[in-house]
This record gives sequence, C-alpha cells and structure tokens, in this order.
Amino acid sequence: AEGGSSTQVAAQPAGSEATYETLLVTTEDNITTIKLNRPTKKNAITTEMYNDIVAALEQAAKDDSVLTVFTGAGDFYCSGNDLSNFTKIPEGGVELMAKQAGDLLRNYVNAYIDFPKPLVAVVNGPAVGIAVTALGLFDLVYATEKATFHTPFSQLGQSPEACSSYTFPKIMGVAKASEMLLFNKKLTATQACELGLVTEVFPESSFQMEVWSRLKAYAKLPPNSLALSKQLIRSTEKDRLHAVNDAEVERLVERWTSDECFNAIMSFFQAKSKL
Amino acid sequence: AEGGSSTQVAAQPAGSEATYETLLVTTEDNITTIKLNRPTKKNAITTEMYNDIVAALEQAAKDDSVLTVFTGAGDFYCSGNDLSNFTKIPEGGVELMAKQAGDLLRNYVNAYIDFPKPLVAVVNGPAVGIAVTALGLFDLVYATEKATFHTPFSQLGQSPEACSSYTFPKIMGVAKASEMLLFNKKLTATQACELGLVTEVFPESSFQMEVWSRLKAYAKLPPNSLALSKQLIRSTEKDRLHAVNDAEVERLVERWTSDECFNAIMSFFQAKSKL
Amino acid sequence: AEGGSSTQVAAQPAGSEATYETLLVTTEDNITTIKLNRPTKKNAITTEMYNDIVAALEQAAKDDSVLTVFTGAGDFYCSGNDLSNFTKIPEGGVELMAKQAGDLLRNYVNAYIDFPKPLVAVVNGPAVGIAVTALGLFDLVYATEKATFHTPFSQLGQSPEACSSYTFPKIMGVAKASEMLLFNKKLTATQACELGLVTEVFPESSFQMEVWSRLKAYAKLPPNSLALSKQLIRSTEKDRLHAVNDAEVERLVERWTSDECFNAIMSFFQAKSKL
Repeated sequence: AEGGSSTQVAAQPAGSEATYETLLVTTEDNITTIKLNRPTKKNAITTEMYNDIVAALEQAAKDDSVLTVFTGAGDFYCSGNDLSNFTKIPEGGVELMAKQAGDLLRNYVNAYIDFPKPLVAVVNGPAVGIAVTALGLFDLVYATEKATFHTPFSQLGQSPEACSSYTFPKIMGVAKASEMLLFNKKLTATQACELGLVTEVFPESSFQMEVWSRLKAYAKLPPNSLALSKQLIRSTEKDRLHAVNDAEVERLVERWTSDECFNAIMSFFQAKSKL
Repeated sequence: AEGGSSTQVAAQPAGSEATYETLLVTTEDNITTIKLNRPTKKNAITTEMYNDIVAALEQAAKDDSVLTVFTGAGDFYCSGNDLSNFTKIPEGGVELMAKQAGDLLRNYVNAYIDFPKPLVAVVNGPAVGIAVTALGLFDLVYATEKATFHTPFSQLGQSPEACSSYTFPKIMGVAKASEMLLFNKKLTATQACELGLVTEVFPESSFQMEVWSRLKAYAKLPPNSLALSKQLIRSTEKDRLHAVNDAEVERLVERWTSDECFNAIMSFFQAKSKL
Repeated sequence: AEGGSSTQVAAQPAGSEATYETLLVTTEDNITTIKLNRPTKKNAITTEMYNDIVAALEQAAKDDSVLTVFTGAGDFYCSGNDLSNFTKIPEGGVELMAKQAGDLLRNYVNAYIDFPKPLVAVVNGPAVGIAVTALGLFDLVYATEKATFHTPFSQLGQSPEACSSYTFPKIMGVAKASEMLLFNKKLTATQACELGLVTEVFPESSFQMEVWSRLKAYAKLPPNSLALSKQLIRSTEKDRLHAVNDAEVERLVERWTSDECFNAIMSFFQAKSKL
C-alpha cells in the first residue's frame, strides 16, 4: 500500500478503461471500481465475464487502492448467471459442460473468499441469483430503494452457491434464509436490510451521491488497518468458506446433469419465448 | 421421490389416519402433516408421543412427500414436555429415569437434525419448552399472531435442549437468546419473527388459509432440488448439531437428578394443585 | 453456590468496598457489581484497571453471587482503553510496550471468555472501543436510551479486539459489523438493540430502577441451572473464542509498532491538545 493515492489499474495503459469487453474497471480516489457493463442484458454474467471479474479482482487485490467496489451499469445491478451459458453444449456432452461450469464457479467464488481488502457492493438495481448470493462475501452492501434480491434456484432445479448455504443462515437465521434459498422469495431492499444482507438503503434520487461521498471518506482511512481488520474478520471462517464452496459446486454439477434441472430450464426458455 | 403426487403414509392401511394414539399423520398434495392431537392437555408430549413422532418423521423421510409439516390440534401448538413424565419413577430410581429420559430426548432431537426434507412448523398457538427450542431445527416457521414462545428452563431447574444452546445464539445473538434460555422471557409472535426464530406471522383469521395455500405451491417445486438444498444448508453444521445435542442431554441428565431441579419441579406441581 | 444470599466479596474485609482505586466491587441480593469508578476520565481503562477488573472477575466467579454486573459511575459507561497507556514507553522500547500491552489484553479478554456465571452489562452511557467490543462476551446487555456504541479502530490505525471480529459478524452479519469495526460508525442504543448487540433499551428516567428490579428477580432463579445453561451456550465456541483472542492480540501487537498506528495516535493527541 505504497505509492500515489489515485492510479490506473497497473497492467492497463494509462487512461484506458476498456480492456474488458463487458466490464469497466477504474481506479480513482483510492477506490477501484468493477462495473458490469452489459446493460442490454441486465448485466447477466457470461462465461467470459466470470473470468474477467476474477482477473479484475486479482488486479484490484494488488493495486494501490484502499477499497474495491462492485456495481452495475444501467438500471440493473446484475441478473445473475446468463442461462445461455448452458445452451452451448461442448463435444464432451452435458457432463463436460457441467464440470467446466463447476470449475468456473469454484474459481469465481474463491476470488471473493480470498479478496484481501474491504469489498463494497453498490447495488444500483435488481439483483438475481449469484449476484445476490455473493453478497454474503462482501464487507459492505449499499442498495438503492429500488433494488430487489431474488434467488430462484429451486424453480430452475438448482441449488444455492457462492457460500450462501452458509452465509445466509448465519446472517439471517435458517427460518428466513430458507424462504430465499429454497422457496424463491424475492426481497425488497428494505427487507434485505432488516435481515442484515444489506448495510443500508438509500433513496434512488440521492443514492449515487450519498454512497460515493461516504466511500471516498472511507478510502482515506489507514489502508493497512482496514485490510488487516477485514482479513481478521474473515480469517476465522476462511477454511469453512472454501469447504462450503466446494460442497456447493459439487452439488450443482450433479444438478446440472439431472433431468429435474434440465426440464426446469427448458420450461424457463419456453415461457420466455412465448412472451 | 418417484411415484404419485399424493399418497398415504406407506406403512399404514389406505385411508387410515389413526395409527398413533395422540398423533394425526396424513399425506396430501405432496405434504406429510404430523399433527399433535392431545388438545385437552395442550398437546404436551408424553414418552409415547416422543417415540411416535420419531417414527412419523422416519416415515415422512421415506415417503413421496416434498414437504413435512408439524402442527398442533386445537388452540395450542404444544406445551412442551409433559412434566408427568417425571412422576413415574422406575424401579432403578431417579438415576435410571434420568438416563432413559436422556436417551429418549437425544433420539428425538436427532430425528430433527437428520431429517432430509424441508421441515415446516405451522405454529397455531402458544409453544412452550422443547416445542420452541426445536424450532431452530426447522426450515420454515409460520406463526399465527396469537402464538407465544416460552422456554422456562431455569424456573424448573433445567437447561436448554434441542440444540437451542447453539441455534438460538446463532439466530438472534447471545444478548437476546439468554433472555429466553436463561431468564424465561416469553416472546410474542411478532418478537419471535423480528429475532429470526419465526419466518412470518399471520392474522389468526386467515392463518390456516394463507399458510396452506403457500405450502401447497411450495410442494410443487422440484423435490430433489428442495431436499438437496436443505441438506446443503444443514450439512455444514450437522456434526456440530449432534455434538451439541449430546452435550445438552448430558447436562440435562445431571439436572434431572439434582436437588435444585427436584425442588423446582415440586414447587411447580404444588403451585398447580393450588389453582 | 452455597451459603448466604447476600455477601461481601470474600477476600475483602467486611463492609469494605474500596480495595481497588478506580473500581467499586459490591455484592448484594445475589448480585456482584463491578463498577468502573473514574468518572472524570469517562471511565477510561488504565493498565492498573485492566488488572483490577480481571481480579474482580476472578473473585466474582468464586463468590456466592448468582449474577455479575458490569457498569460505570457517572454519565459514561466507559470510554475504552486509556490512550495514555501508550505514552509511557518502557526501556525496552515500543516493541516491549506492545508485547506487554498484548499480554494484558489477552489476559483481560480471557477473563470474560472463561467467566462461568451470567454476565450482565448495565450500559449507563456512551461506550467506546473495548467497552463495546467486549459486549459480545456478555449474556445480557441493558442500555439507557442515551448510550452510544463506538469502535473507532481504523481511525487510530488499530484493529478489533475482545473477539469482536468473530462475535459481531455472528450477532449482526458482516454487512453491519464492518460499518462498526472497519468504518467507525457510531450506533445509537436503539440501533445496537435492533442489531442484537443490546438486549433491551430503557428510558433514561427509569433505567436504573427497571434494570435493577429485573436483575434482582433474575438473581433468585436456581443458580446452578443459570450457570450451567450459560456455560452450555458458550461451550460450543469457547475454543474458537480463545483462538480469535490470540489472533486479534497478535494483530494488534503488530499494529502498535507500525508507523500507520503511531501517526494516527499522534494525530489524535494533536487534535485533542488544540481543543
């Protein structure tokens, strides 16, 4: 944590912000911001984007910034996993596709578990699926009042990921977590805040202004103190989080090759095509 | 999870619902319901009923149902352990009685810990003692507004059970859990919901209608996805729950043979007989 | 837990309450009360007081009382660690000072982790630093409405202690805990109660009367049942708490010898001297 207080991401040419196709990564005022930039698809995450986000997190871990912020371009925060990821079946068949998707997911979640600096979600709109479950691995979650939080796993024949099978019951208790993770309940921002998933909710009109002025003040605090305190908080459960990630991925790989999941996803696409 | 969508419990003759003396077990719309049926005694649990509930849970685990619901007949959900269980001292004396009661309790709680499908409590009225503490092992807890939650252990010289010494602090924090588990505080349904012990509270007038229409919808979701997701959530703490159950039972067996507990229970019966 | 219902602390001469210079320890109605008595310094804890509190806790663990209460004299509960503790550099230099302060802290927190009876905080005014973080190790926390809860660690280049890096995320979730432990957010009593750090908040006008009448009633409950139930609740995480305490102390010893922390504390004293 030496050097200037405002730098570009090291590996990129100065002034450039366009290394990733659907990701904007910038560093300013000691804050590195990773912005999903696929607004026409509600910032759904493609296979390429998973890898790009991992690369951006690894870069942010090493750069001079004090805080790392994750947010979305446009009206959506992120609609989760792009289900079209499941329509490109490789030569090895569904089993190979499931294995590859599992490896991708495990790697993606590990990047959050191991992230060494305070990680902040600026939830600018609706969040779905893995964009919600990963919030349990963030240190601060600020949401606009128009954000919603939806994890429709069982509807799609799937199961929870991003350590949410562990973090959600820990944050809100099983009786509340099950409604989200098993029974597809969609939360408002206020509900998510009352349950402890969200740190604070802001009016849409002042959301960006209030959040960023606060984050800029936070980014002036002693950086080692912040990073080491965050690591201390996570260190007591880091091994547990990795084990949970492994178990969740193993379960999902099985799900992705099951008839139950296949039929549920087919129904989703059929319903969508009828609109 | 193959076969018809609505079946009787397999080991019972078709149409029969009366195998158990004080328990009604039915399966309909993919939901197996275990109803305590001893309303004149506020559904207090006798030694026989503990064994019957374990048998009903084992049966429900194997049948074709998607959800299992636990509820009470009449105005009470369950007034907990029938204290008259402690008045039948066997030939081996209090020590043997305590040991047998401990084995019964350990077995009963294990049936909840190991239950493989989503388990729902429909709390239709006041809940006392083990009927409250066991809620930490349920996946959903729906309560009527007239339900209350009371665990008067120290008043009776006893100590917490059903893993509540672990689940309650996890759900609501020690500062709230201690008021219930150590200092006998009785919660309203709304308070229990705010603390995360209860999923949602409903007006008494629409309680049964709203809860059952919701549960019937949930029971149509992909069954393997539900069961596997529930198991994933519990798997990270299953060993811990069994260890906690053992420690709590060991503590209670000691309590049941103590003068402090004996005197407290005698005072309870004397106060009752004066009414 | 035999003997009279109201006794003086055993090792002290009868009627004496002044063994400690800035601590009042009394036993009455089965309750041992440890009161910080340095109101002109907002009950900031000096090196001597850390040792005195440990001695008082060890004494309370052994006496005949049923409950132990911790509170402050005057308008403040406790302003935390007296920063002047850091201005007396011993001959061995800053490294030796940091090591000694670490040993003192580890020992202090262990006295809370291992305390065998219900421990109650009566928070009579603002609480700062370790007076806040230690609350996660109490069983009940009653607060006046004018209490506040502030842990400005990163402002001073430091990191969380008293197991708060583990207890706070457990009680309120990481998204709320990080605002306190990383970003110096000060909570009102009502906010702390909603997050589960505080059991209940009372109006200032009736605070002492309501709290003490409640505690006197609690202190008449069966003492073994209370102590054993409290131990049961803590036993599942006692090893974890000791490990967290060690990790936090190790981190702080490093912090106290860092330039970042030195500069932050110097700024604090300079700002103070300008007032």
